[in-house]
Amino acid sequence: AIADAIEEALKSNTHIDREKKVLPLKGKKALITAGPTREPIDPVRYLSNHSSGKQGFAIAAALAELGAEVTLISGPVHLPCPIGVNRIDIETAEEMMGAVQDALPSDVFISVAAVADWRPAECASLKVKKDKQTDGPPPLMLIENPDILKTVSHMEQGRPELVIGFAAETNDVVENARAKRLRKECDWIVANDVSGDVMGGDHNVMILVTADTETEWPRLDKQAAARKLAAKISEALTGH
Amino acid sequence: AIADAIEEALKSNTHIDREKKVLPLKGKKALITAGPTREPIDPVRYLSNHSSGKQGFAIAAALAELGAEVTLISGPVHLPCPIGVNRIDIETAEEMMGAVQDALPSDVFISVAAVADWRPAECASLKVKKDKQTDGPPPLMLIENPDILKTVSHMEQGRPELVIGFAAETNDVVENARAKRLRKECDWIVANDVSGDVMGGDHNVMILVTADTETEWPRLDKQAAARKLAAKISEALTGH
Repeated sequence: AIADAIEEALKSNTHIDREKKVLPLKGKKALITAGPTREPIDPVRYLSNHSSGKQGFAIAAALAELGAEVTLISGPVHLPCPIGVNRIDIETAEEMMGAVQDALPSDVFISVAAVADWRPAECASLKVKKDKQTDGPPPLMLIENPDILKTVSHMEQGRPELVIGFAAETNDVVENARAKRLRKECDWIVANDVSGDVMGGDHNVMILVTADTETEWPRLDKQAAARKLAAKISEALTGH
Repeated sequence: AIADAIEEALKSNTHIDREKKVLPLKGKKALITAGPTREPIDPVRYLSNHSSGKQGFAIAAALAELGAEVTLISGPVHLPCPIGVNRIDIETAEEMMGAVQDALPSDVFISVAAVADWRPAECASLKVKKDKQTDGPPPLMLIENPDILKTVSHMEQGRPELVIGFAAETNDVVENARAKRLRKECDWIVANDVSGDVMGGDHNVMILVTADTETEWPRLDKQAAARKLAAKISEALTGH
């Protein structure tokens, strides 16, 4: 009898999730980047950015829950792949750029990853030995990484209908976000104030900056913030 | 009856572990560093080294199993603290150096951590903006971090009886390890060939370099390698 009850409960749950629930993003494709990138200096050393990947993974999950076909391109993080999401793991910004291009076209592109702006100009194939540097460590020469958000925003053919960037800011949050939106030519910027405990934490205060609105959301856990953003995306793409 | 049997089994297990088992390192203190360090460039960017922390955590666990009082100073890793080990988390090489000095004296010091040799000469308090760098990214000026292994090896008062370093090498493994042992003035170097899949993986090929021996161990999982090293340490400190 208990087994029957469990089976019944599972059935009705499946029923709700898979059949009766409104899936406004069914038939839509979403492409999301998440986590940090790692830029090798030599076989043991690298440059990176703080990023747990939690917010990007939560957004991928929230869009999948609304029925979207979701591809998640992730840097090195310690998170399980959300249910129903196609995950592709990469390390460097260049690999992320390549994976994004391979995964397009998409109806919406959301750049949540903390992509390293710069990478070492050269990657040594052998470990650079400290004791060989008689005059102290040599300066690390850097070059610019591809700008993934800008590249996708500027696509002449097949640009996603909605291109969304994230801006992790420690100061002048809204001003920096507004400037970033114009510079990248993306549709929305979600600004994060990372001066507190956001990075790696479970909560987020986000400000959504569009062409004509700036909306500060209350402090939410990353799942709730993701669902709020997913609902906004659904509204923009489908009208509901 | 089943409950009784389980209780009996648990009792006898406890009995073996806690009372009858020989604990050759009882009364000895062991200090271990593990994992990478992270050296901040600004609030979002950092320099680091590849290191999962697995080998250092396994050595801490193996020494605790032999009865040692173990302190484990760890950089950012995703590992649970081994049973019976006192864990202290740090981020930078300077913080690790301070934590080591606070935790001394100890009978044995094992430097397994992948400590960053260099750190940015300056850490910006605000995120360095890419678009403000009109001539491309500025070179990253580096300075030397404290050499924790060398500092402990050179202690005039209260030097641990046994000081052991690890050497992650991609080439000329034994030659580099031998040179490192002399340069750091530590007692033993455990050399790792990291040109393969060691880093983050579950196996390790280690070569133990002492003043008068060089012994290559077979490919072992990191737990088995740790127990082998712990047994060697016990032999050196206690004669059994």
